[in-house]
Amino acid sequence: MTDPNPNEGGGAETGSDPQAAIDARGERRREALDDRITELSAGDEQEGIPFVGAGPGDPGLLTVTGRRLLEGADLVVHAGSLVNSEVLDAYCADADLVNSIGKDLEELVPLMCDAYEGGEAVVRLHSGDPAVYGAALEQMDALEHEGVPAYFVPGVTSAFAASATLRTQLTLNEVANHVAFTRPRGKTLSEEADHVSDFVGMGDVTTCIYLGTHAVRETMERLLEDGHDPEIPVAVVYHASWPDEDVLVGTIGTIADRVEEAGYRASALVIVGEAVTGAGYERSYLYGDWANRGSDADGRAGSD
Amino acid sequence: MTDPNPNEGGGAETGSDPQAAIDARGERRREALDDRITELSAGDEQEGIPFVGAGPGDPGLLTVTGRRLLEGADLVVHAGSLVNSEVLDAYCADADLVNSIGKDLEELVPLMCDAYEGGEAVVRLHSGDPAVYGAALEQMDALEHEGVPAYFVPGVTSAFAASATLRTQLTLNEVANHVAFTRPRGKTLSEEADHVSDFVGMGDVTTCIYLGTHAVRETMERLLEDGHDPEIPVAVVYHASWPDEDVLVGTIGTIADRVEEAGYRASALVIVGEAVTGAGYERSYLYGDWANRGSDADGRAGSD
Repeated sequence: MTDPNPNEGGGAETGSDPQAAIDARGERRREALDDRITELSAGDEQEGIPFVGAGPGDPGLLTVTGRRLLEGADLVVHAGSLVNSEVLDAYCADADLVNSIGKDLEELVPLMCDAYEGGEAVVRLHSGDPAVYGAALEQMDALEHEGVPAYFVPGVTSAFAASATLRTQLTLNEVANHVAFTRPRGKTLSEEADHVSDFVGMGDVTTCIYLGTHAVRETMERLLEDGHDPEIPVAVVYHASWPDEDVLVGTIGTIADRVEEAGYRASALVIVGEAVTGAGYERSYLYGDWANRGSDADGRAGSD
Repeated sequence: MTDPNPNEGGGAETGSDPQAAIDARGERRREALDDRITELSAGDEQEGIPFVGAGPGDPGLLTVTGRRLLEGADLVVHAGSLVNSEVLDAYCADADLVNSIGKDLEELVPLMCDAYEGGEAVVRLHSGDPAVYGAALEQMDALEHEGVPAYFVPGVTSAFAASATLRTQLTLNEVANHVAFTRPRGKTLSEEADHVSDFVGMGDVTTCIYLGTHAVRETMERLLEDGHDPEIPVAVVYHASWPDEDVLVGTIGTIADRVEEAGYRASALVIVGEAVTGAGYERSYLYGDWANRGSDADGRAGSD
């Protein structure tokens, strides 16, 4: 597939305004599936600019494909301080580096288009997985509207590094049957769309709060006002897997003081739920007699 | 840290019964944090048996560290058909391979202990990320109770490969502010602990249903009974990033027929929500003027 934009003619209809490009791509999505969804799989080499998940921070937690793409890149547009500089140091010695922070779509899109059309290998590097709080799609839509294909290369999200640090699972039989990735109300999320308390109230959800380091006290106070048990465990993992990784473990009632004492203002993941301690779970059926029936329909072993 | 089990004396108190070991480790978790939680970070090399996330399937979506550990392994205990055999073919040519499916803890734990204590490099390979529906912790607790340390190496979960295949994000401004990883009621989850309908009812959650391929019709019928809009988009991604990856896109009202027609019985991820199509999202503030103020407290760019 050489033309990502067969129905539109390179942005001629809407010009090169990114918002118009996003709206036009959204309209196309409603009408028909992109052929590439069925023609290509997530592991395939693809034409275009890869939006690579850098993983949580440690260079070893980048994917093999992500590493290969970075090592072959001429231009890497990265998410500044959100990506551990060790990743760039390890894999991008030969590339031009551009920090995207402080640059809007109107600046980033022509920058990437021009390099790609000039024959350069361009990589867009987001922290974690680019599909989770990544704002990648709007850049991809704007690029494709200009005739430059783009695709995702998934990565390890910071919640998985945080659970590895805590030596626990995000799901644990009986204790934590589900996981939520969420963020608290703020400038970009209304009060009605804040579901932190709903997730915690379900009782068996591990609630992973992204983009909420600055709001730990307000978030915990709201949970207390909503009647949640102040003893529910909470962990705050700052810069999971980075050299300056730091971990605080407390409860809904105690964690805000600890976060303020530690001085975190951003870049930490907050995890609420019994999975934090890993205590009290039930052994699964997965490795008992049940699994030996050979079914993998329900409760199959070791799967995600 | 050489003794993962300093207070217990190698399982002497409880013998080598895995359930007793799990209970004893859980008790310790309630009492005090494992020193390694603060001493080590998720990226560090560690002593013991790594529980490695194999990623969704494609060998390129394994982490760099996972690859290194597999390539250096003498014994790899893997999750059988849940791990794409291409991963084993690519990285485990020199290792003994043991399929864990059909083996219970009483068999797996001594197998891994004996090899580790005999000086072999042992790797336990789970699909996806081992902290998501992985049943890893019970094996780790049983190993550590026997004096063999164990640790997590995170991986890319299948939902991230599925969203890459669908060329969408799991979170999208306004449309999908949150993500849930969940599984439906069944032999190992009670009706009360089934939150699929709760997540869908929130309206702005991308609901990723693991371990539910066999129950797509019942799950969709319950969503309809609960009054959810039959037009809500649903994607089913079978073997995301494997060579036989397959994708179905429909709605709550239509997807069950398509899944049955395709004949999937297991190993597919079901994603419910507007993020499936990627249509209708709002451009974020991340690349507009707001981000240029340089704050990364809320709505910061490109982060997860």
